[in-house]
Amino acid sequence: MAEKTLATLFHDTLKDIYYAERNILKALPKMARGAQSKELKQAFEAHKEQTQGHVERLQQVFELIGKRAQGKTCPAIDGIIEEGEEILAEYKGTPALDAGLIAAAQAVEHYEITRYGTLKRWAEVLGMDDAVKLLDATLKEESETDEKLTGLADSAANQEAAQAAE
Amino acid sequence: MAEKTLATLFHDTLKDIYYAERNILKALPKMARGAQSKELKQAFEAHKEQTQGHVERLQQVFELIGKRAQGKTCPAIDGIIEEGEEILAEYKGTPALDAGLIAAAQAVEHYEITRYGTLKRWAEVLGMDDAVKLLDATLKEESETDEKLTGLADSAANQEAAQAAE
Repeated sequence: MAEKTLATLFHDTLKDIYYAERNILKALPKMARGAQSKELKQAFEAHKEQTQGHVERLQQVFELIGKRAQGKTCPAIDGIIEEGEEILAEYKGTPALDAGLIAAAQAVEHYEITRYGTLKRWAEVLGMDDAVKLLDATLKEESETDEKLTGLADSAANQEAAQAAE
Repeated sequence: MAEKTLATLFHDTLKDIYYAERNILKALPKMARGAQSKELKQAFEAHKEQTQGHVERLQQVFELIGKRAQGKTCPAIDGIIEEGEEILAEYKGTPALDAGLIAAAQAVEHYEITRYGTLKRWAEVLGMDDAVKLLDATLKEESETDEKLTGLADSAANQEAAQAAE
């Protein structure tokens, strides 16, 4: 067996985030259907389009390293998505649902931000300039989505608090 | 059953991060033992001390809302820690181990950053000023730890690449 190097770790982590992105793609329509506010529904739908693009960028990175695009079970994203589904089930029909869904979506974004940040750093060290560009483009979009969700979070929480005070 | 409100969501999420912090506390000594560089070992040991303080701050927040400090299984942190343990097992004795452990630790930090960010925002909306201060203090420490790990990541990845090129 060849020794495991940073290139092996890069490939393993690429498989991890590829699995994660494809599962996020499946989870987003459920989140969009569950969301109460129109703004949040739209945000989840827009992010689904974006996520499709992230999957395609990852396929390009696999091509750059001469490997087949392939996922590897990622217990972290499984757990994060499971928590989102718990919120959907437990807070359905309550005024706190959107605040909970936004928190769940931000946990997804933060997982992606840390993974893309790591992959980009390793691609730099490995001298893979084209991969750096692809990973950086997705990293920027994930950070923007997280900021957008923070904006929606403030309005969702405030709205819920106002309803509760009525 | 009383309607679930933002206060219910705050309490549920507090239990989630309380469970997470206590499991991180158990995982950190394994990460410290596994780490190859002295700097990374020390970083994990220092973060263990800090995490003990985070657990105590959470206990104070439980007190502020008049609830017993209690965890609730958090599949997200279970999955994130499981991935760290996979790295420990699969990369043991290889030059890429530290780079992998740092990536795993940064996934933990990002999960905590998003959870504390959310809890702080909700505490603000709920007018719980003392809780905001406690949550913000931990949020700042988690962000600092993440930045420190980024610094170590650059040196670990570069060192591995230099070894691989020898």
